[in-house]
Amino acid sequence: MKMAIVGITGYSGLELVKLLNNHKNVTIASIHATKEIGRRLSELYPYLVGVCDLVIEEFNAQEIMAKSDLVFFATPSGVASQLAQSFVEADFPVIDLSGDHRLPADSYEKWYKKIPASDDVLNKFTYALAEFTDVQGKKFISNPGCYATTTELALIPLLKAGVAEEDSIIVDAKSGLTGAGKALSESSHFVNVHDNYVTYKLNRHQHIPEIVQELQLFSKKLHHIQFSTSLLPVNRGIMATSYVKLKKPLSEAELYAIYKDAYKDKPFVRIQDDLPELHNVIGSNFTDIGFVYNDVTNVLTVVSVIDNLIKGAAGQAVQNLNLMNGWNETEGLLISPNYL
Amino acid sequence: MKMAIVGITGYSGLELVKLLNNHKNVTIASIHATKEIGRRLSELYPYLVGVCDLVIEEFNAQEIMAKSDLVFFATPSGVASQLAQSFVEADFPVIDLSGDHRLPADSYEKWYKKIPASDDVLNKFTYALAEFTDVQGKKFISNPGCYATTTELALIPLLKAGVAEEDSIIVDAKSGLTGAGKALSESSHFVNVHDNYVTYKLNRHQHIPEIVQELQLFSKKLHHIQFSTSLLPVNRGIMATSYVKLKKPLSEAELYAIYKDAYKDKPFVRIQDDLPELHNVIGSNFTDIGFVYNDVTNVLTVVSVIDNLIKGAAGQAVQNLNLMNGWNETEGLLISPNYL
Amino acid sequence: MKMAIVGITGYSGLELVKLLNNHKNVTIASIHATKEIGRRLSELYPYLVGVCDLVIEEFNAQEIMAKSDLVFFATPSGVASQLAQSFVEADFPVIDLSGDHRLPADSYEKWYKKIPASDDVLNKFTYALAEFTDVQGKKFISNPGCYATTTELALIPLLKAGVAEEDSIIVDAKSGLTGAGKALSESSHFVNVHDNYVTYKLNRHQHIPEIVQELQLFSKKLHHIQFSTSLLPVNRGIMATSYVKLKKPLSEAELYAIYKDAYKDKPFVRIQDDLPELHNVIGSNFTDIGFVYNDVTNVLTVVSVIDNLIKGAAGQAVQNLNLMNGWNETEGLLISPNYL
Amino acid sequence: MKMAIVGITGYSGLELVKLLNNHKNVTIASIHATKEIGRRLSELYPYLVGVCDLVIEEFNAQEIMAKSDLVFFATPSGVASQLAQSFVEADFPVIDLSGDHRLPADSYEKWYKKIPASDDVLNKFTYALAEFTDVQGKKFISNPGCYATTTELALIPLLKAGVAEEDSIIVDAKSGLTGAGKALSESSHFVNVHDNYVTYKLNRHQHIPEIVQELQLFSKKLHHIQFSTSLLPVNRGIMATSYVKLKKPLSEAELYAIYKDAYKDKPFVRIQDDLPELHNVIGSNFTDIGFVYNDVTNVLTVVSVIDNLIKGAAGQAVQNLNLMNGWNETEGLLISPNYL
Repeated sequence: MKMAIVGITGYSGLELVKLLNNHKNVTIASIHATKEIGRRLSELYPYLVGVCDLVIEEFNAQEIMAKSDLVFFATPSGVASQLAQSFVEADFPVIDLSGDHRLPADSYEKWYKKIPASDDVLNKFTYALAEFTDVQGKKFISNPGCYATTTELALIPLLKAGVAEEDSIIVDAKSGLTGAGKALSESSHFVNVHDNYVTYKLNRHQHIPEIVQELQLFSKKLHHIQFSTSLLPVNRGIMATSYVKLKKPLSEAELYAIYKDAYKDKPFVRIQDDLPELHNVIGSNFTDIGFVYNDVTNVLTVVSVIDNLIKGAAGQAVQNLNLMNGWNETEGLLISPNYL
Repeated sequence: MKMAIVGITGYSGLELVKLLNNHKNVTIASIHATKEIGRRLSELYPYLVGVCDLVIEEFNAQEIMAKSDLVFFATPSGVASQLAQSFVEADFPVIDLSGDHRLPADSYEKWYKKIPASDDVLNKFTYALAEFTDVQGKKFISNPGCYATTTELALIPLLKAGVAEEDSIIVDAKSGLTGAGKALSESSHFVNVHDNYVTYKLNRHQHIPEIVQELQLFSKKLHHIQFSTSLLPVNRGIMATSYVKLKKPLSEAELYAIYKDAYKDKPFVRIQDDLPELHNVIGSNFTDIGFVYNDVTNVLTVVSVIDNLIKGAAGQAVQNLNLMNGWNETEGLLISPNYL
Repeated sequence: MKMAIVGITGYSGLELVKLLNNHKNVTIASIHATKEIGRRLSELYPYLVGVCDLVIEEFNAQEIMAKSDLVFFATPSGVASQLAQSFVEADFPVIDLSGDHRLPADSYEKWYKKIPASDDVLNKFTYALAEFTDVQGKKFISNPGCYATTTELALIPLLKAGVAEEDSIIVDAKSGLTGAGKALSESSHFVNVHDNYVTYKLNRHQHIPEIVQELQLFSKKLHHIQFSTSLLPVNRGIMATSYVKLKKPLSEAELYAIYKDAYKDKPFVRIQDDLPELHNVIGSNFTDIGFVYNDVTNVLTVVSVIDNLIKGAAGQAVQNLNLMNGWNETEGLLISPNYL
Repeated sequence: MKMAIVGITGYSGLELVKLLNNHKNVTIASIHATKEIGRRLSELYPYLVGVCDLVIEEFNAQEIMAKSDLVFFATPSGVASQLAQSFVEADFPVIDLSGDHRLPADSYEKWYKKIPASDDVLNKFTYALAEFTDVQGKKFISNPGCYATTTELALIPLLKAGVAEEDSIIVDAKSGLTGAGKALSESSHFVNVHDNYVTYKLNRHQHIPEIVQELQLFSKKLHHIQFSTSLLPVNRGIMATSYVKLKKPLSEAELYAIYKDAYKDKPFVRIQDDLPELHNVIGSNFTDIGFVYNDVTNVLTVVSVIDNLIKGAAGQAVQNLNLMNGWNETEGLLISPNYL
């Protein structure tokens, strides 16, 4: 199958190149951006010389549909909502890595401050958390956000099992800088990030409604979550530390069974004996989850970690690609974490 | 006044040298360690050449009392509990930066797994959170822990004002590596810390009982806290993110008044308009506090930051020294944060 | 083909696991260490759960020869010199990643302060810089050091072309911490490395004789090099900055031709237009080389970068494995650099 | 004495605030920038609350001269060359931290690509490397660059002693990111700097002519230097590694004597027994120098380190202020290095 990537110069677009390059069933047919048209990608990014020497092309929906079988949007918010419509109308498969097709129009407008896609288009998209959504045969995939993926995978098993006080949930999430994208700003200047730790968008992060919406599929009693986001002085990796009051005390074995059961036959989620660290997963599509229950406070602390650019973006997109097509879920994704 | 420092080669001991060097009312009379006796401190630490060229001496309580007016213990846990007694018996002033005189004997034994000081000695020590403890004229000071200082200063104003649901408190605290001391271990090896974020001692950190004990001075209804500790890949700095349910909704102005009131005339606590970052305080004795209230979840998020080696150790010790002696509280401590 | 790895818990051993796992022609038959015998590798390193769950075995040369077709030594210096002999005597293939078979016995003893292998064994080993050594059909491979690889690949083209003043060469090389191994020491403690830059073993690094020996294959007039090694506060990556006086001024085009010619048909060496950065290569088996000539000083500055654990260790070992067996040189090694 | 600072929001301006705040003989009368006029500095930089709450003022030469006794320029290149003239004409003291008054007009234009100051003004300025320039009674000081200070202090003793092959000098210098200033660019984005090491402006750094000019004061036989500049993934600190052929072999004792002699009575230069690290000096006004001679290659390697914002900018400016006025050279500058 032939793939087109729109938004090639962002971090997610570049990561898609890496993953699709190692995927047996696909080739990259074309790559698209709004600038640097006509230049080889490897001229701009010399690390890609000999890895991907494709030339950047202007976006043209008709040409993409003529030459490819599926298009990935790895664009900033506000772009796919404008550009995906013609593919949807033509019933041409789309995987959107951006936030543009995750929320109902009014919620999108409120949290993203951008013009939403039409309801018709939005209704055709499936929000696809790969471990919990059946996407086989689906054509329009909205890939979850990085914070959202980390948080949802930690909390869904507890909600499914009905053991959590739904409205007690407090999530303290931390991300490396690639999560904030490539834009130049005071907050991404090396000197301001290095040796620092900065909490931002407290209660205002645009992944909050997406998380609540997904968690409500598993428990209608959940109304809201308390959600913090901070920047770690690292390039990659997200950790979500979730604090959950339990309805009644549970043993470690009971909790372990809840998680193991939720993720049996799920190759990319690992329930770890010890609390996972970022090093567990960076460079891979794994989500690692660990937990500790405190019987004094009755709080369960769940720690979940992912690589924000892989499981939190390009990797989960490829996982969804595999599942849509009925391929082996792990094709192109059996990459060891870097560890160091 | 002449000062002796026991435990000179630890991070807190070295930081004390820096601060006492700039203090008008004191000189360092002697420095002590268990090894490298007879060598100049600046031979071991060339950054100190011309700053402190004192020779390291063996510990000898009688000699210290003969030559100095006060002794600082900047020793690992389990040392001051053994060595401080002779000073106490001689009514010779002690400031202990370690955890050895912060807890009742049974609690100390449980959390530190070391032999406690005698009850007689413990009873003579005052746990001195500099902003809330009256130490003028006191002789035996137990200096608070770094995580404890950061957490207590964030939470006491809410408990004093009676606005917090006492047993709702969840603290997600993060520290740089100097907080973990100089010991060589897998967990302090550069490769394992860099580009990583590791949660450790969850619910088991030895500062927990000290925090609960201090908070209970301000609210008897508080029974426990949920407390997480993680290692940030930086050298210095602690951030405590505290999540507190409020008894009833409060406006930002009301919350601001509570904090401003608690710290009026306290030169080292700054209530900031924005959530503070580590860069706000590193290199200084300041504690910066900021907060955001979420009226959907009714959770108040309080962020407090300190430099763990200064306000969390040597700086607060000097602040206590000043207050004990009725000196200006800021003497020797008016150092700007590094910022970068 | 079946592979055994001796020294599995070192950084190079772990990296070999990652690479051999993705290699079509081989499987890992057994992994060996001196401790943690009987435990799954993924128990010790949870990032490997589901990636490599092999059990660590005691070293036993006979068993390895019975079950495998080749053995890798990824051991600290002083080990392979003792353990490889029985394989050599049995004519069983060995790839040694350590420094134990790179130098003549007297030189090894001088630089490594260890007991050398016997001359008989040493004579059977081939020092195999993959781009310049013909190893097809060879059985005993001594894999070059990380600093050595970075430096030799930068300098050989100039020496081959006869354009360098041989004894003018000054190399200022910098490495990330994984280059220094896993041992716990003051110099690998996070606090001492972070925000620091430390020059060590100046003129005394054990890769110096190996570099001189290899360069002399290309120019007998070279007698020595000036060689500095420093630790960068990063986990991976080496940059060698080489300063070379030219015999006569050369144009950029002439220099480019010299390098392009030396590495035509060499898939892992890329001559870049701009000076390469560590990000160019980390995570991959590439060596990137760039240069700038200064016609005022007549000094050519050559910058070469590699990932020390891949091209500088496990990757080059797999490359040599491929070449020994007449396989495709890139099998198992077509991995994109991480870039970020 | 009252001080005005122009360019307050740059790194050097902020560092000057910190240092002048602790200086007994001066007060800061006014701070100036081109934007954020009328706001408190501590509103923009909350770390300064309670440290410096001055309001930013528009630049006005007449008002500065009316209210202050000296003006510091901590401005980007191209500013002081335009603004300093009116002060010079009024014979009002100026210390310029920028590069605008370091070079003759033609050289400035070539290396800085900016319009130079007039020859009249340039002639009145003294380039003041504090350890080697007599500035007592001088009114117009051009403060050396950060790379230049590090390099000149390492090399002058050898040139003065006549032991160096003048045109053999190769300098491999490395700087933290604050050396590159606050401007937002791809090359200062956290993700591009972290875990990376980048060589830039090779042979083209604007400090090269300044270094050559200063070194020629000590040896007319020196015509040029080979000079590399790279970015270390740290905030602060410069290391210059200088490679120098000696005219004849020298013992370590002879070399030590040369350096000790050059810096006797110089409180801010320390000749260290071991090669200095960045940690030796960061946070202080010290320059640390160490060296190793290689009798095989006849190359002397000299390693010199400074804090680029202190000895390389604001600290040396204060040192020059002290020397101009005949005050104690160390006033306001006796700050211990941070060490960690």
